Amino acid sequence: MSRSLLVISAHAADFVWRAGGAIATFAAAGGVARVVALSYGERGESGELWKEPGQTEEKVKQIRHREASQAAAILGARFECLDLGDYPLEVDRAALERLTAIIVETAPDLILTHAQQDPFNPDHPVAYAATERARQLASGSGVASAFRTVRPPELLLFEPHQPELCGFVPNVFLDITPVWEKKQQAMAVFASQSYLRQYYSERAAHRANHARRIAGYKDIERAEAFQRVLPQVVRSL
Amino acid sequence: MSRSLLVISAHAADFVWRAGGAIATFAAAGGVARVVALSYGERGESGELWKEPGQTEEKVKQIRHREASQAAAILGARFECLDLGDYPLEVDRAALERLTAIIVETAPDLILTHAQQDPFNPDHPVAYAATERARQLASGSGVASAFRTVRPPELLLFEPHQPELCGFVPNVFLDITPVWEKKQQAMAVFASQSYLRQYYSERAAHRANHARRIAGYKDIERAEAFQRVLPQVVRSL
Amino acid sequence: MSRSLLVISAHAADFVWRAGGAIATFAAAGGVARVVALSYGERGESGELWKEPGQTEEKVKQIRHREASQAAAILGARFECLDLGDYPLEVDRAALERLTAIIVETAPDLILTHAQQDPFNPDHPVAYAATERARQLASGSGVASAFRTVRPPELLLFEPHQPELCGFVPNVFLDITPVWEKKQQAMAVFASQSYLRQYYSERAAHRANHARRIAGYKDIERAEAFQRVLPQVVRSL
Amino acid sequence: MSRSLLVISAHAADFVWRAGGAIATFAAAGGVARVVALSYGERGESGELWKEPGQTEEKVKQIRHREASQAAAILGARFECLDLGDYPLEVDRAALERLTAIIVETAPDLILTHAQQDPFNPDHPVAYAATERARQLASGSGVASAFRTVRPPELLLFEPHQPELCGFVPNVFLDITPVWEKKQQAMAVFASQSYLRQYYSERAAHRANHARRIAGYKDIERAEAFQRVLPQVVRSL
Amino acid sequence: MSRSLLVISAHAADFVWRAGGAIATFAAAGGVARVVALSYGERGESGELWKEPGQTEEKVKQIRHREASQAAAILGARFECLDLGDYPLEVDRAALERLTAIIVETAPDLILTHAQQDPFNPDHPVAYAATERARQLASGSGVASAFRTVRPPELLLFEPHQPELCGFVPNVFLDITPVWEKKQQAMAVFASQSYLRQYYSERAAHRANHARRIAGYKDIERAEAFQRVLPQVVRSL
Amino acid sequence: MSRSLLVISAHAADFVWRAGGAIATFAAAGGVARVVALSYGERGESGELWKEPGQTEEKVKQIRHREASQAAAILGARFECLDLGDYPLEVDRAALERLTAIIVETAPDLILTHAQQDPFNPDHPVAYAATERARQLASGSGVASAFRTVRPPELLLFEPHQPELCGFVPNVFLDITPVWEKKQQAMAVFASQSYLRQYYSERAAHRANHARRIAGYKDIERAEAFQRVLPQVVRSL
Repeated sequence: MSRSLLVISAHAADFVWRAGGAIATFAAAGGVARVVALSYGERGESGELWKEPGQTEEKVKQIRHREASQAAAILGARFECLDLGDYPLEVDRAALERLTAIIVETAPDLILTHAQQDPFNPDHPVAYAATERARQLASGSGVASAFRTVRPPELLLFEPHQPELCGFVPNVFLDITPVWEKKQQAMAVFASQSYLRQYYSERAAHRANHARRIAGYKDIERAEAFQRVLPQVVRSL
Repeated sequence: MSRSLLVISAHAADFVWRAGGAIATFAAAGGVARVVALSYGERGESGELWKEPGQTEEKVKQIRHREASQAAAILGARFECLDLGDYPLEVDRAALERLTAIIVETAPDLILTHAQQDPFNPDHPVAYAATERARQLASGSGVASAFRTVRPPELLLFEPHQPELCGFVPNVFLDITPVWEKKQQAMAVFASQSYLRQYYSERAAHRANHARRIAGYKDIERAEAFQRVLPQVVRSL
Repeated sequence: MSRSLLVISAHAADFVWRAGGAIATFAAAGGVARVVALSYGERGESGELWKEPGQTEEKVKQIRHREASQAAAILGARFECLDLGDYPLEVDRAALERLTAIIVETAPDLILTHAQQDPFNPDHPVAYAATERARQLASGSGVASAFRTVRPPELLLFEPHQPELCGFVPNVFLDITPVWEKKQQAMAVFASQSYLRQYYSERAAHRANHARRIAGYKDIERAEAFQRVLPQVVRSL
Repeated sequence: MSRSLLVISAHAADFVWRAGGAIATFAAAGGVARVVALSYGERGESGELWKEPGQTEEKVKQIRHREASQAAAILGARFECLDLGDYPLEVDRAALERLTAIIVETAPDLILTHAQQDPFNPDHPVAYAATERARQLASGSGVASAFRTVRPPELLLFEPHQPELCGFVPNVFLDITPVWEKKQQAMAVFASQSYLRQYYSERAAHRANHARRIAGYKDIERAEAFQRVLPQVVRSL
Repeated sequence: MSRSLLVISAHAADFVWRAGGAIATFAAAGGVARVVALSYGERGESGELWKEPGQTEEKVKQIRHREASQAAAILGARFECLDLGDYPLEVDRAALERLTAIIVETAPDLILTHAQQDPFNPDHPVAYAATERARQLASGSGVASAFRTVRPPELLLFEPHQPELCGFVPNVFLDITPVWEKKQQAMAVFASQSYLRQYYSERAAHRANHARRIAGYKDIERAEAFQRVLPQVVRSL
Repeated sequence: MSRSLLVISAHAADFVWRAGGAIATFAAAGGVARVVALSYGERGESGELWKEPGQTEEKVKQIRHREASQAAAILGARFECLDLGDYPLEVDRAALERLTAIIVETAPDLILTHAQQDPFNPDHPVAYAATERARQLASGSGVASAFRTVRPPELLLFEPHQPELCGFVPNVFLDITPVWEKKQQAMAVFASQSYLRQYYSERAAHRANHARRIAGYKDIERAEAFQRVLPQVVRSL
């Protein structure tokens, strides 16, 4: 059976910059990757689109949906959006239940989401908290329960824009050299944000530098950093 | 080429209770395991032996060496002791160089040692600090240097007796069910310490309970907990 | 006047495993102990009961109420349940006011509840947060106020199932040797959970081992660990 | 253009004890200072007033408004109150939007508010959380957005009553010697709380002692301590 | 048998300001209190004495010894000094053994010393580290050993001058109202440091204010704050 | 009188990559900047030089001295080296006294040095510890003492290579746009390390991106990040 990855992000484009390499790596290995955005980031993070005269929220959402779907497809993932609104993003009881149901239905081996804090983004920590709570509700208490549960998935956080200010301490570096071209293509979908493309390309090279220094693998040219939150259970060291 | 494990402990018997399962697992998979004790624990941790009339430090050391070697052999490892003295253990410049040389010579993939703090053991933190410093000196700065270096090994801490008081937060649970019998035999070598045997047998069952809860693997019956200190560099998630 | 203890737990059975010894000790010394469960744990933590065909939430609650009341009686405490629902437990404004009223009415010297975090239980942190907030509302600002207040109670957290993953650092070890039989009887009430009985019996022996090591009292055979959250105010050291 | 300061406090009088010197200093330098209280502290922190027979919440609020306005005027600031209620203070979506609008309208260079935790005050952390969230919503994501935003203000926390229990670590000491008389006058407005006047006068002397020790400026006689939360961006060191 | 208290301080006068009330309370209850200073603070903390022309280190030490002995006597304690030198204070192997021997010989129920960090005092953390290490060596590993050991004493830290900058979080407040006069007399011995007398008198009133707020005991007028480092082992809650 | 900056680094070249912009900014404003390296990094960090046949430690040191002096001159600073050896760097009592004397003699307003931890460099934390201790010894206890002291300097840490793994949380971002060309020239001195030049050029652009996001100053193109360790004492906010 193929492995399953679930990426939960606050806004439509987050997954590309922060986890595009992980998604492409997962898909390339035969895994099934699903991206769930809680909002389109239509109000707060669609800067360029709002400069166009006569722009509307509905149109912004459509553009964002198209772009995110296209980028996800390049990486090998399916994209969907719960459209909960942004700035501020709020996850009420019903939305929490939808998210829990998605986890139960997906039964992911691995969930990726935002870091717990972000002093410069009001929605990222909301996405973290909702994901963390839904993960627990979906996996239950470890004993038989009155509702359907899944095997507890792993949980990793992807890199925020200002890692140290978000309490982010990477403990997993993923070599994304083999899928780097795919990540570049996915980033290129967001045509108006070429400065982010440059930023995250350089960042991937820096993280590769760190990975080489940590483990001595000289062939790593691009990497993504993650913070694993829960213990690993392993059969060998 | 076979993988290499280096276990560095403050006193002669520490490795059995805390990492016996890890060593046996490593050896069973074809790896080479080497245990280096910094002291015999002859003064502070050889309680029962000192109750014998006419006991001497030299004899205590011999008994401890024999027992530790035998336990290591059962687990599949080689045992040696730097005999630096205990209560207090001190690692001076020369001893640090010996330890560094051992790491360079062993070129381990993985080092296991004590946690950084222990309010009830004056020697364990000294062993941690020496190991951590020797690891860095042995692996160098990541560029060519004036001395021989090795590929940076992984570093994991084994479980202290009172984990929470030592700042120990386990992030790796190792299934030791397949080698449990070997660990029991190794623990049985220390005949006078049957209460520790019971304690760590129950502890292994509790850690297995935790591991099952964390990951849902129902076949884990005994486990050991570790704290990985440095990031992992991986090729897939 | 007799001293008063209030135990606030997320689900019906939590208090037995985690604070049964403390309750029995308190009651044996002439104190009044009251257990308030926020929910019955009817959906998430009543595993065995749900295996019975035709089981309903109502029947599960009744069984849980009967068992918890019986266990509390053995320990010397009164049991009641706010029946707020579980998985997820939610404490809204009205429930918070009920909890605050209970604290004001009980005027406890001491409150016991869950730890602040738990990555494997969505309800325990909710119980902590509600208890902490109700404690503050009940004890007021330290000056005269528009509502009735009580002398600020002490607050201690009882041990979670995976202490290190919950940020739990014990700073109080309670000798429960004299009441150990009572705790065993109370645990035995939950007939279907014999594995928990074994787990927490061994745990009590381990905590006693820690307590002996910390303070040198050799007569402690069973202990429970707690984390005191607020400063102690004392008349002597 | 003059600089702008926004002080957001949970209750009507907090700003005087904790930031009176900062406000007076700011105003004395030509800056515009605005104090927004989220509640009057009418139920929990108006102790003396409630001792008067026949007292009502409405009258308490009026007295508190008059006193706070007068104290603010002495310091050189404008006072207003959102009147959201206290013990417990709650900030719902509408209140959050009001607070966000105030920040956008004020466009402050600097915001002062409570610390993130307080085990002896249920409302202070609520004020912190609301302020922090409103600050982020008001300053946006750093790119063009669908709503009006302001240049990101600095954020500093003022000193809580029991600093260490609130996780407060001061990293800014402000010399308030030149405006000390004004702060004394402002504190004197709250006639019934002379013990707080003494407490905070001594505290200001102690913080001055600390400031002299830290930086060697011997002329500092009174100081206030703050915790800067976000990085400073500077043109020189 | 009477209880025993050991106070270990970096310089001769530290114990008066920071633990004078605790010592007097302990002695008044019939306990035996012993103060061991590691140095006289002759170079770094004898400011006023060095202003005298022709002053020498030897004379400064004599004055400090006389003053400290007198203050200790007022509080009910014996004073001695290891005279290890200050600024910087260093504790070598021999000094560590002397300190360990003192603990073994005293067999204290309780040790008081400095906090672990102090960015404005190079000697206080050295005193902490030496005390902590000596405590462990003196109490051994919990099993029979080759050397004489004592029952593990409790360890509390006394309040540093700038608590928050030293990582000091008080968790014990001691009511010193009954012995306040004695502490005042002991402080008065250090005639040239009247400003410290005022500072610590006000501080004692502030800590009493905190203690009243925490526990509701209205009769506390002066208090000292401490940080208990190790868990308490108790027979009741 | 001109302001004074002291940079203390473990190896000869550290100051260029990590603080070159700060030094140039300081010098450009008329300040006096002095760089003190504790070692030349001759064994561990002079990789390229050791690839040359017949290389000796003495020659490596000479080359490093020449390069570092030249880079410092470009930035506007004086360079010197205590030549204490590297891998491992050790600072004994005599070296500590030299460093203390340098601080007393320089009387810097500001000291820059390494972060407290670095899991991939054994010498950086040693430089931090020595600097921190020398700073305290040089500035004394805040009262008159038996030795010459200076006004307590500020202390900032410069950015390590893997910030999150070193516990580095930047709280000061310095705009180095005006001196960027100078930093580039200084980096260019180290001809063999062009990859570091690229790394730190990109890093400076990233830190500028962060600074713009934090404070909204759109003209910042290059920045350096620092962690201020001690509180600031200010006259206005």
